[in-house]
Amino acid sequence: MARHDPNVQTGIDMRNARTKKTVNVEDLTIFLHHGHEEWNAKKKIIDILQREPLLDKSRREFMTRTERYEDGMNITNRIYELQQLHGWTENETKVALSSVDQPLPIHLHNIAFQPVFNLQAGPVLLKKYGPLITSRAMIGCYLQTELGHGTNVSRLETTATFLPDTQEFEVNSPTLTSSKWWIGALGKTATHGVVQAKLILDGGKDVGPHLFLVQLRSLEDHRVQPGIVIGDIGPKVMGGFPATDNGFARFSCVRIPKENMLSGFAQITENGQYVQPPHAKISYGGMLYIRSTMVTSAGWVIAKAATISIRYATVRRQGEIGKDGLEKQIITYPSVYYRLLPILARAYTFIQLGRSLTNAFSSMADRLMKGDTSLLAELHATTTGLKILVSTAGAQDIEVARRALGGHGFSAFSGLGNVYANYLPATTYEGDNFVLDQQVVRAALKTYRRLFSSGGQPSVDLFSPSSSFLRYMIDPALTPTHSVIHEAQWRDPETSILLLERRAAVMVHDHVQNLDSGEGAFTEDANANQRLSKAVTEAFVGVQVGNIIKTLGGTLQESDATMVRKILLLYLLTTVDAALIDLLSLSLLPPLSARSGLGAGMGIKNATPFNSGSKASRSRSTNLSSSGGDPVKSLRLTIDALCRELAPEAVGLTDAFGFTDWELDSALGVADGKVYEALWERAQKDPLNQKEVPDAYEKSIKPILQRGLRILQDKDKAKL
Amino acid sequence: MARHDPNVQTGIDMRNARTKKTVNVEDLTIFLHHGHEEWNAKKKIIDILQREPLLDKSRREFMTRTERYEDGMNITNRIYELQQLHGWTENETKVALSSVDQPLPIHLHNIAFQPVFNLQAGPVLLKKYGPLITSRAMIGCYLQTELGHGTNVSRLETTATFLPDTQEFEVNSPTLTSSKWWIGALGKTATHGVVQAKLILDGGKDVGPHLFLVQLRSLEDHRVQPGIVIGDIGPKVMGGFPATDNGFARFSCVRIPKENMLSGFAQITENGQYVQPPHAKISYGGMLYIRSTMVTSAGWVIAKAATISIRYATVRRQGEIGKDGLEKQIITYPSVYYRLLPILARAYTFIQLGRSLTNAFSSMADRLMKGDTSLLAELHATTTGLKILVSTAGAQDIEVARRALGGHGFSAFSGLGNVYANYLPATTYEGDNFVLDQQVVRAALKTYRRLFSSGGQPSVDLFSPSSSFLRYMIDPALTPTHSVIHEAQWRDPETSILLLERRAAVMVHDHVQNLDSGEGAFTEDANANQRLSKAVTEAFVGVQVGNIIKTLGGTLQESDATMVRKILLLYLLTTVDAALIDLLSLSLLPPLSARSGLGAGMGIKNATPFNSGSKASRSRSTNLSSSGGDPVKSLRLTIDALCRELAPEAVGLTDAFGFTDWELDSALGVADGKVYEALWERAQKDPLNQKEVPDAYEKSIKPILQRGLRILQDKDKAKL
Repeated sequence: MARHDPNVQTGIDMRNARTKKTVNVEDLTIFLHHGHEEWNAKKKIIDILQREPLLDKSRREFMTRTERYEDGMNITNRIYELQQLHGWTENETKVALSSVDQPLPIHLHNIAFQPVFNLQAGPVLLKKYGPLITSRAMIGCYLQTELGHGTNVSRLETTATFLPDTQEFEVNSPTLTSSKWWIGALGKTATHGVVQAKLILDGGKDVGPHLFLVQLRSLEDHRVQPGIVIGDIGPKVMGGFPATDNGFARFSCVRIPKENMLSGFAQITENGQYVQPPHAKISYGGMLYIRSTMVTSAGWVIAKAATISIRYATVRRQGEIGKDGLEKQIITYPSVYYRLLPILARAYTFIQLGRSLTNAFSSMADRLMKGDTSLLAELHATTTGLKILVSTAGAQDIEVARRALGGHGFSAFSGLGNVYANYLPATTYEGDNFVLDQQVVRAALKTYRRLFSSGGQPSVDLFSPSSSFLRYMIDPALTPTHSVIHEAQWRDPETSILLLERRAAVMVHDHVQNLDSGEGAFTEDANANQRLSKAVTEAFVGVQVGNIIKTLGGTLQESDATMVRKILLLYLLTTVDAALIDLLSLSLLPPLSARSGLGAGMGIKNATPFNSGSKASRSRSTNLSSSGGDPVKSLRLTIDALCRELAPEAVGLTDAFGFTDWELDSALGVADGKVYEALWERAQKDPLNQKEVPDAYEKSIKPILQRGLRILQDKDKAKL
Repeated sequence: MARHDPNVQTGIDMRNARTKKTVNVEDLTIFLHHGHEEWNAKKKIIDILQREPLLDKSRREFMTRTERYEDGMNITNRIYELQQLHGWTENETKVALSSVDQPLPIHLHNIAFQPVFNLQAGPVLLKKYGPLITSRAMIGCYLQTELGHGTNVSRLETTATFLPDTQEFEVNSPTLTSSKWWIGALGKTATHGVVQAKLILDGGKDVGPHLFLVQLRSLEDHRVQPGIVIGDIGPKVMGGFPATDNGFARFSCVRIPKENMLSGFAQITENGQYVQPPHAKISYGGMLYIRSTMVTSAGWVIAKAATISIRYATVRRQGEIGKDGLEKQIITYPSVYYRLLPILARAYTFIQLGRSLTNAFSSMADRLMKGDTSLLAELHATTTGLKILVSTAGAQDIEVARRALGGHGFSAFSGLGNVYANYLPATTYEGDNFVLDQQVVRAALKTYRRLFSSGGQPSVDLFSPSSSFLRYMIDPALTPTHSVIHEAQWRDPETSILLLERRAAVMVHDHVQNLDSGEGAFTEDANANQRLSKAVTEAFVGVQVGNIIKTLGGTLQESDATMVRKILLLYLLTTVDAALIDLLSLSLLPPLSARSGLGAGMGIKNATPFNSGSKASRSRSTNLSSSGGDPVKSLRLTIDALCRELAPEAVGLTDAFGFTDWELDSALGVADGKVYEALWERAQKDPLNQKEVPDAYEKSIKPILQRGLRILQDKDKAKL
């Protein structure tokens, strides 16, 4: 009989998945890339990059940390060569740099050093250094974080003391903990840096943190400048950011000319007078933009995890025998599709959400330039909340997807280990998510008080996008009409959005009540800020997703629009599912008629076999057609139904992200589905396999075996 | 004025924490190690190991994967040298091997190959190879998993065909996917292996998977035996298991003598007749034991995470200014202690739970040896549930603790990256947790049907430890007496245990109802098995923890016993907190009197400012003294109160684990608290810092800078 070959089957399963899918992959690809232009540009660049020998990723796993750094610099240099060779625009070069799928030191020059310098340097500095920075004739880094202090800039210890006699500043690190630390590209690469330091006026007055341009290394021979100690802070956990030289620096009384103070927002006169900056909020504009791009990038990272895990789950067969007489594809198991399809949904959601936010915030930036800062604090809080939401979800989704790969997911060749290690710091940098929660809460309370302080009804036009959920507290007409929620209601996005908004409104209100209750501390538990911050942000996102859903018809043909609507609905429903504790404990879900009025003991009584026919227990045991008005059950069954509708399209929906095998760099996510061949081939390249007998044999294995023999001989001797 | 030095402050803060604590660290250390003997033995061994130059861990981060393997073998060889030098027992040597804090290939010989061989080999094989294996004159591995199949042994493709003429077996890998894969120590180390292969009788009858001893490498020169292809499968994600040579093997018609079949449970006669094995369940005994040890080891891994993170949170000061005029220690922030103290609680709980289980299961093993298999299936399910519970919690706690370290937690010197990477596979090996859930559910349903099939009331003595929660379905007297739960009730462990047991009972009952409702599939959502498995296991653990709490008085002096009771109570309460969705959606919590009868819209109406004085909103805004009967609020406030009571003792409670700095290998977890000095010193050893100008300068940095200059010059030319 012909033997069944699981390896051959993988290719067949992947082909079948592509034949069965009904979505138009090309259309969705254009949709996800927001038009032909962006997509074609990316395709062109990827096509060039993946033919570069230097960009062969297979060697990376076997390099030392030092080699990874050198490899990263060689790649950087090559990419700027390619830029000239192919006449890439700055934007195309940015795409190229982000496509090599490892964080590079030059990234810090491009997104941190250059923007800060351009925004805050005065005309003199700009004229002198601007062109050098743009052309990278000098490479910069941004020195804020110190060994002893992170985001809390007001406590930074580094000082810059003004010396009127010489019209200089003296930059100094008075303590070990004032050493700049974690600064990307500082360790070995950067020649210059913008240093955050407390400005000390003549006479010792401390006027707080300001920015100063300091040369770190000679442009002649790259030697470190006198008075500065510079180095790499060492490797990162799980092999993350291996090519980036996060560095430290200590300054002992380093003199810099007065003009090196970034004087865009503050100045020192020649006689040492401090000139108050104008309203500096204008500088937020750029930050809002960077934060909003974090949503899009989270979407694309999650998209990688979704593509790899869904492809593997499609070709991996295990366990029960299906109709075709073969073991089932693991994506058909509820425990698998229930984990992977919500991840796919978050990828689609964040990519779309990010785009609409980027647009919103650039228009906001314009308003800022015109001096309109009315909504700034609130918008800043919103972007903060989004940063927390997407970075937490991103890190979790990558790891959940990796574990869904089962045993093989622990192989470095799965690709998701690197993706995780490099994405992970997003949860702690740009502000630790748990610290940032407090900012979101403070802003929400401020808005609440602004709106309701009068006691009267604030007019609706006072509600900004990020506070609109609070309108539920003034308009009774907005309370829900239906008293039970069946699948039909869950299928309507408005149901989820309404619940998310009302949850946020109640929680903000309760929080204010607690703070005002005058009963002192501990009226809120330790996790209250986290829950409230999440509720506020999820209400905002819910509304945005609702708006995106409304626009789909215009951009996609109906069949595809329907599918994307289902994906976005799945995002909303899984968000509500994760919010059930709030919704249930705040009585925001319609009560289960069959269960209402039950006492504590009742639930269990109804559950005893002796009256198992009771309404309550039946209500929990019936299916979609009649979930007995139990909103939790109907929610979960609707999520399950949605997943089963999306599963057959999953490969098509992930193909639509347009990743090449080179981009994914995953043996388990190969486009042709031949995962076992890919694992086998990658293993053969392992340096350990280049010698039949490892060097360790003579040195340690042989001694172990021989010791064993001696032990036996001694035992035998003993017997005699 | 004398400048405040945060670095000096770290040492002061750590000393103060040790002065303020009231627990007796030494007593708790003995308690956690279950007596002086175990603790003294460990201390003696650690003391020797940390003076070994070869065991200096600081070089590891900078080695290649191949170097890590060689390093691991050298360490292994050295430890067996030390065993002879110091006359260590096998058990002491085991402690030493597990203390080097990296998984070594020899581990697979000791815990997989040797036990399987000893348990299943027949007398002939045992006599011939037993001594060689015990003395490690041969090094073995256990070959089960294949490229195409994991835990599902019934589908393994490797074959062993009996050849009557030569009285041999022919071991063969018919397909690529039949290649053995992931086998620890197979790649480069093992000389022999026990191979899982389908036994094919003369005539082609397949009688399923059996075990065969196969020599893999020559004992003369370590060359691979003819007909076998062997290699390392490559690196693991996040740098996990770097010193272990997980390997692959393909067999092309490899002949082995008939005697090499492990015939403990099945035999082939000379004329090829298959002799049915006796009841093979007896072999479960060992597995039960291994599973139960996973609980203890999870406890100790979590203990490391708790020690490092709590020490750092004690000396790290950031943000708000406290009474002492300094920034607050971050452990005083709710968002920090709320994350760390439950981790400390799980460490204490799992260490104690593991010990009591190990005892329980060894007595069970005795019963098995006597042929009593009555409770076997259920006990197997219990250990499975525990494996899922502790490995999932372990991986999560390590990462939550790492993120609580903030930015510095992303440095490899934090130590928790390695701990995480090496613990991670516990969630997918020994069975993927999500696959195992089904086993737990099946067993629970089986027990339920066995107990209630009659319809009559099963007698209480039918309930085993793992099914006792089902008694709530026959004894109405067991339903709770109090109709509200205030802090006083939450302080009583029985409240949590009762809720966890009743939750499991209701969910098992409802699940059976759904399956029996005859409404076909999809009456349960995709995540039902996960929830049910968790509920069943947490009910079992809850009862065990209750028993441990009762015994504390005998083993500890009262003040310490009180503290440990609080720790175990915190474990119970956080378990209930995480179970709130179930408890609320199943109406298992007393209804909030003030809120009972509220309709869906009401919650929000009560939340509007215009009747903010309403009972409902006040009930949510009052503090412990009167949480208005809201059980969710009183639960959370009790958790918060417990955390604040434990926080001042946290350093003492983690000191009690007895880890040395060498064991923790963490710059952020150093015993003296001087974390900044430790980070600084470790960074100086970074190879990248041994050269002021990196090799990358000439090759790639200089070209980038020079290209920049040329670009500027060309622009200037263009201007002329």
